[in-house]
Amino acid sequence: MPRYRDLTHTARPSDAPRVIEPKNPLRSVDPGALEMLKVAQEQNIETVFDRFVAQQPQCGFGYKGICCRICIAGPCRVKTEEGPGSKGICGATAFTIVARNLVRMIAGGTASHSEHSRHVLHTAHAMVDGEAPSYSIKSPEKLHKLASQLGVSTINREDREILKDVTEIAYSDFGRYQDRPLAFLDSFLTEQRRKKFQHTNITPRSIDGTVTELIAQTAMGVDSDPVNLIFGGLKGSLADLAGEYIGTKLSDVLFGIPEPIVSESNLGVINSKMVNIAVHGHNPVLSEMVVAAARQLQGEAQKVGAEGINIVGICCTGNELLMREGVYLATSSASQEMAIMTGALDAMVLDIQCIYPAVQQLTECFHTKVVTTEGIMKMPGAQHIAFNAETAMEDAQKLVQIAIEAYKNRDPKKISIPNERHNLVAGFSIETLTDIFSKVNSDRPMSVLTDAIMNGQIKGVVQMAGCNNLKRPQDESHVVILKELVKNDVLVVATGCSAGAFAKLGLMSPLAVDAYAGEGLKSFIRMLEDANPQLTTGLPLIFHIGACVDNSRGMDLVMAMAEELEVDVPKVPFAASAPEAMHEKAVAIGTYCVTMGLPTHVGSMPFLEGSDLIYGIATQIAHDVFGGNFIFEMDPQVAAQKILGALEYRSWKLKIHKHAAEKFNTEIAQGW
Amino acid sequence: MPRYRDLTHTARPSDAPRVIEPKNPLRSVDPGALEMLKVAQEQNIETVFDRFVAQQPQCGFGYKGICCRICIAGPCRVKTEEGPGSKGICGATAFTIVARNLVRMIAGGTASHSEHSRHVLHTAHAMVDGEAPSYSIKSPEKLHKLASQLGVSTINREDREILKDVTEIAYSDFGRYQDRPLAFLDSFLTEQRRKKFQHTNITPRSIDGTVTELIAQTAMGVDSDPVNLIFGGLKGSLADLAGEYIGTKLSDVLFGIPEPIVSESNLGVINSKMVNIAVHGHNPVLSEMVVAAARQLQGEAQKVGAEGINIVGICCTGNELLMREGVYLATSSASQEMAIMTGALDAMVLDIQCIYPAVQQLTECFHTKVVTTEGIMKMPGAQHIAFNAETAMEDAQKLVQIAIEAYKNRDPKKISIPNERHNLVAGFSIETLTDIFSKVNSDRPMSVLTDAIMNGQIKGVVQMAGCNNLKRPQDESHVVILKELVKNDVLVVATGCSAGAFAKLGLMSPLAVDAYAGEGLKSFIRMLEDANPQLTTGLPLIFHIGACVDNSRGMDLVMAMAEELEVDVPKVPFAASAPEAMHEKAVAIGTYCVTMGLPTHVGSMPFLEGSDLIYGIATQIAHDVFGGNFIFEMDPQVAAQKILGALEYRSWKLKIHKHAAEKFNTEIAQGW
Repeated sequence: MPRYRDLTHTARPSDAPRVIEPKNPLRSVDPGALEMLKVAQEQNIETVFDRFVAQQPQCGFGYKGICCRICIAGPCRVKTEEGPGSKGICGATAFTIVARNLVRMIAGGTASHSEHSRHVLHTAHAMVDGEAPSYSIKSPEKLHKLASQLGVSTINREDREILKDVTEIAYSDFGRYQDRPLAFLDSFLTEQRRKKFQHTNITPRSIDGTVTELIAQTAMGVDSDPVNLIFGGLKGSLADLAGEYIGTKLSDVLFGIPEPIVSESNLGVINSKMVNIAVHGHNPVLSEMVVAAARQLQGEAQKVGAEGINIVGICCTGNELLMREGVYLATSSASQEMAIMTGALDAMVLDIQCIYPAVQQLTECFHTKVVTTEGIMKMPGAQHIAFNAETAMEDAQKLVQIAIEAYKNRDPKKISIPNERHNLVAGFSIETLTDIFSKVNSDRPMSVLTDAIMNGQIKGVVQMAGCNNLKRPQDESHVVILKELVKNDVLVVATGCSAGAFAKLGLMSPLAVDAYAGEGLKSFIRMLEDANPQLTTGLPLIFHIGACVDNSRGMDLVMAMAEELEVDVPKVPFAASAPEAMHEKAVAIGTYCVTMGLPTHVGSMPFLEGSDLIYGIATQIAHDVFGGNFIFEMDPQVAAQKILGALEYRSWKLKIHKHAAEKFNTEIAQGW
Repeated sequence: MPRYRDLTHTARPSDAPRVIEPKNPLRSVDPGALEMLKVAQEQNIETVFDRFVAQQPQCGFGYKGICCRICIAGPCRVKTEEGPGSKGICGATAFTIVARNLVRMIAGGTASHSEHSRHVLHTAHAMVDGEAPSYSIKSPEKLHKLASQLGVSTINREDREILKDVTEIAYSDFGRYQDRPLAFLDSFLTEQRRKKFQHTNITPRSIDGTVTELIAQTAMGVDSDPVNLIFGGLKGSLADLAGEYIGTKLSDVLFGIPEPIVSESNLGVINSKMVNIAVHGHNPVLSEMVVAAARQLQGEAQKVGAEGINIVGICCTGNELLMREGVYLATSSASQEMAIMTGALDAMVLDIQCIYPAVQQLTECFHTKVVTTEGIMKMPGAQHIAFNAETAMEDAQKLVQIAIEAYKNRDPKKISIPNERHNLVAGFSIETLTDIFSKVNSDRPMSVLTDAIMNGQIKGVVQMAGCNNLKRPQDESHVVILKELVKNDVLVVATGCSAGAFAKLGLMSPLAVDAYAGEGLKSFIRMLEDANPQLTTGLPLIFHIGACVDNSRGMDLVMAMAEELEVDVPKVPFAASAPEAMHEKAVAIGTYCVTMGLPTHVGSMPFLEGSDLIYGIATQIAHDVFGGNFIFEMDPQVAAQKILGALEYRSWKLKIHKHAAEKFNTEIAQGW
C-alpha cells in the first residue's frame, strides 16, 4: 500500500504552468533554459545550442544511414542509385547498411540499459552477501511480488534468501546461455505475445549473449538480409526490455516503490544560500547514497556558511530521486550545462549516460567540481571517486564534502539563478496507480481505466518517453503533443526527459489539469481524487512513472490493461511517443514498444531514410507481424493527430467487439 | 604425436612461386585473380575492384575516426580545430570520438570471434549430450592437454565426461559474471602478463559481459576519457583472445590437431570436370561435415556426368579445411567473387564473416547456387539451409545435393578457370612445431627455436595475419613484407588471408625456401628437415598455423618461447604484422597483440588519425605500459624494415642480458 510521505522540501505555492511559445531563433521552450542562454550569450560561453548550429548541415549519408564504417576497407557510402557506387566495397546495398547500423544502435541501447541494471543487480547481490552495508531491502512487498512472478518460493524464508534467489535468476538472464527464454521477460508477457515471439524466433536467451550476437551478426561479411537483420534487432529490443525490467524491479526492492510525492522543478530550485549538488545520469545506486549522506552532513555545510545542502537532480538520476525522495529536478538533458552556468552549483556528481563531456569543459569558467564515479565513465580533467557498494556511504560522504569545499570558491558575481520553479506531483509506479484505481473498484482495479476507455470518458493511454534532441526546439515537441493529447482526453504516463520537460514547465502539477485536460480526462482525474481522500495533494495532469529505464513500468501497465480487456497488446488503446528521441536507448525502447504491439511515435528521425525497404518494415510490415509500428513524424501537431488516430482506431475496434459480443455472443465475435 | 597423413588429393608437381609485380593500375598481385579480372572487364561484370574505385575519395571524417553516429542528435563531425565546430553536439572532442569508435571496433571483433567460438562450443556441448551424432572427439590428446591446463581431472574419466567439464568452463567464460578472470585466458598467460593485466585493471570477467560493457561505455554520454576508453578496449581485446582460444582448442578437440599436409591453392584448383563446391567463411563446424558428405556422395555426382565432387575453400573456412583435411584453398577474401566467375563453381556454401553480399548478386550472371547456413547470416535471394548440430550430416548432404543439381545448369561457354595452382605444405599447429623441434632436442623442444635466435641463425619470429584490404593492391603488402623478412632470416608463421596470399602464390611451398629464404633461415629449416626424416615432404618457407581465429596459436607459441627464455613476452623477439587489416576482428587481434607485449605492424590505417593523442597511445604509450605497440606503416618495404628493427632490438637486448648473466651472474643482470 502506498504511504503518502511527507514532503522532503517545503514546496512553494505552485504557480501556473509556463511554456514559452517558440519563435525562431529560440531553441527551447523552457524559460529557465532560455534565461541561462541569455547569460551564455552575454558572457560568450559555448553551449550545446552553439554546437548544434556549428554541426549544420549534418552529414546526409550518416543521417540516412547509408554510411558504413564497420570495416577499415571503408568508410563506404551509398553514392549513386545504381552501379558500383550504389554499394559498399563488399557489395552491401543500402538496405543492408541501414539495417546493420540500426541494429547496432539497438544493441547499443540494450547494452546501455543492461549495464545500468547490472550495477543495480551487483548491488543487490552484494547486499545479500553482507558486502553492501549501506543498502537494505526497502520494499519487501515488491520483492515478494517479484519472487512470485519468477516462481521463487517465499514461504518461511527470509527476505535476503528470497532476494538471493531472485538475483541468481537475474544473473542467469544476463549471462548464461540457456535453453529457456529470459525469466524476467517471460514472467510478464501475455500468452499471445509469448507465442508471437516464439513463432518469429526473436525470443532472446541471454541479455549479454544477445548483444554479442547482434554485434557479430552486423559485422562485415555476415548478415546482409535486411529482414533477418531487423528481426535480430527485435530480439535485441526484447533483451533490452528484460534488462530494464531487472533494473526497475530491483531498484524498487532496494530503494522503495515510488509513491505520489510533491516536489519542484526547473533551475530555480538551485538555492544560492545552500551547497548545491547536482546528481546527473541514470543510476540510483549512487545518488540514493548521496541524498542520505547530504542529510547527515548538513552541519558541515553550515560550518562553511551555507544554510544546508540542496541536492538537485538532472536527467534520469533526477527522475529516480524525484519519484522516490522528492528531490528537486533541476533540469533535463539538453540544458544540463545551464545548471553549472547558474554559478551556484558546487558539484555535479555523475554516474552514466546522456552526460555531455561539455560539463567539464564549462568548469574552466565556473567553480563547479565535476566528479565521475563509475569505472566505465571518466572525463578528462574531472575528479574520479570510485564508488563501490562496499563503501557506499563513505564514498557518498566524500562526494558531498567535495561540494562543501567547492562552495568556498563561489564567485558571487557569477551567480545567476533563473526565477523559474514549478510544483509537481510525481511517483506513479504501477503499484500506486493500481492502488488509486482500487479505491474505485477494489476487485478489478484496472477496470477503472479500461472502463473509462470503453465508455469514452478517456481515449486511451499514451506513454511519453525519451530524450531531448535539438533538431527541434528543446521540449517543444513534448509539450505540443502532450497538450493535444490531454485536450483530447488521453491519459498520459511519462518517463525520462519527456517527464523532465513536463516537470520543468509546470505541466506535472495538479493545476495543469484545469488548464489543459479535456472534459473527459478532467472528470476521470477528479473521480480518482474523490475516491482517494487520503491523498494530500491533487492528482497531476501527467502521471510520472520514472526514469527512462522505467519504461518497463509502462509495459507492466499495458499488460495489466490487456489482461483486464482479455485481449493481446495490439488491441489495447495504448500508444508510445518519443518526441525527441536521441540516445541508442531510445531506439531500443521504441523498437520493443513496436515489438510488443504498440503504435510508437518517434519525433526525430533514426538513421534509416536511406532505405525505403527498412522504412517500410518499421512503419508497415512491423504492424502486419507484431501489431505495432513506428510513426515517424517530426511535426508535433501532426504527430499528435496520428497518435490520436491510432488510439481511436483501437478503441473503435474494441467497442465493436464488445458490442458484437454482447449482442450475439457468437464464435464470430470471439474469433476476431 | 603428429601422424603425417596421406594426401587427400594427388598434388601436381609443384611449380615455382609466381607473384605478379604490381604496376598501376593493377589492383592485385595474384595471377589467378588478375586473369579473372580480365574476364570481368570483357564481360562488364562488377567486382569489388570496381566498387573500391567507385568509393574514392572515401570520406575523410570517417577515415580519421572523427565522425560520430552514436546518437541520433548527430551525425556529428569534428569540422574545425577549435570552437563549437571542433566537438560533437554533446561536446565530445576528437579524442573521445576516435576512442569510442575504435573501442566499438574492438568490441565488434570480440563479438565476431566469440560467436564463432560459441558455435563450436555449442557443438561440442551437444555432442557430449548425445545430440550431435555426426561429431566426435577426434583429438583426445588435445582434450587431455586442455583439461590439465584448466584444472579438470582426467584420471579414470571418460573423454566425454572430461569434455563436458571443459565446455562448462567455457560457457562460464562466455557468460557468467564471476569474481575470477576468464579460465581459458588465465590458463596460458605468463605470470608477469597476468599481473600486468591485474595492475592495469583490464582483466575481463566474461566475454559477452565485456562486449556489452564496452558498447555501454562508448554510448552517448558515458565515457569521454580517451585513456579509460582505450583501456576498456584492451580489456575487450583480451576477451577476444579468450574467445579465439576457446574456438581453436575446441575445434582441435572435435576435428583434430592440424598436422603437416600437402595441398594446392589458387583458382586453378577448381576442376571443370567435377562438381565444385566452395565453402566460404570461418567456421569448421559446418564445412567439416560438407567434406564428409562429399566423400559419401561422389557417386551421385558421377550420375550427373561429373567425375566427382571437388571441395575448395575460400577465406578462413578454407584455411580450417586446408590445415586439417588438405582441402584445396581456392582463393582469399578479396577475390572471393572470382571463384564464381570461373563459371565452374556449382555451389558456394557460406557460414559467417568476410562474405561479400556481392557473391549473391553475381549469380545473376552465373549458375552458382549460393547457400547460407547460419541463423545470423542470411542473404537476400540466396537459399538458406539451416545447419544444426543435431542433423549435421543430413544438412551437409542437402548442401552437396544442391551443388550436384546446379552442376546440370552449367553454361560451358562461361567456364574460364585460370591455369594457376601451386603446391603448398600447411598444418603447423604449435603441437606439430613442437614435435618437429623435439626431434632436435627432445628435452626442451622450444630451445631449438630460441637458441637459433640467440646464436643469430634466425632473427626472430613474425606472425603474419589478417585480411585483404584494397587500399593497396591485393596481396602485395603481404608478399613484399614476407620476402623481406625471410630474406633477413625471420621465421614466419601465418594465418588467415595472409596465409591465403602465400598459399595462392606458391610461397607456402618447400620450393620457396630456396627461392626466398636467407642463409640463416634456410639452414634452420634444413636442420629441422634433417632431424625429421619421417616427413614425406620438405618444410615450407612459411608455417601455416591456421585461420584468423587461430591467431591464438601464435600466442601459444610466444608464451612457450617466453617460458623457454625465462622472460616476459615483451622481451621475446616476436612481432605481428597484419599488412592488409580490414575486419573489426583484425582490430581486436592487433590490439591484443600489443597488449600481450608485441610490436604489431598494421598496413592499413584504422580510423584514428583524427586524434594525435589516440595515435600516440597506440604507438608509444602502449609500449611504455604493456611493452607492445602498434606500428602503422602503409609502405610494405618500410614496414618490413620497422619490423626487422623491432626484432633486432629485442634480440640485442636478450643477448646483452645473456652475456651479462653469464659473465657476472649478478643482481643487476637478473633485474633488468
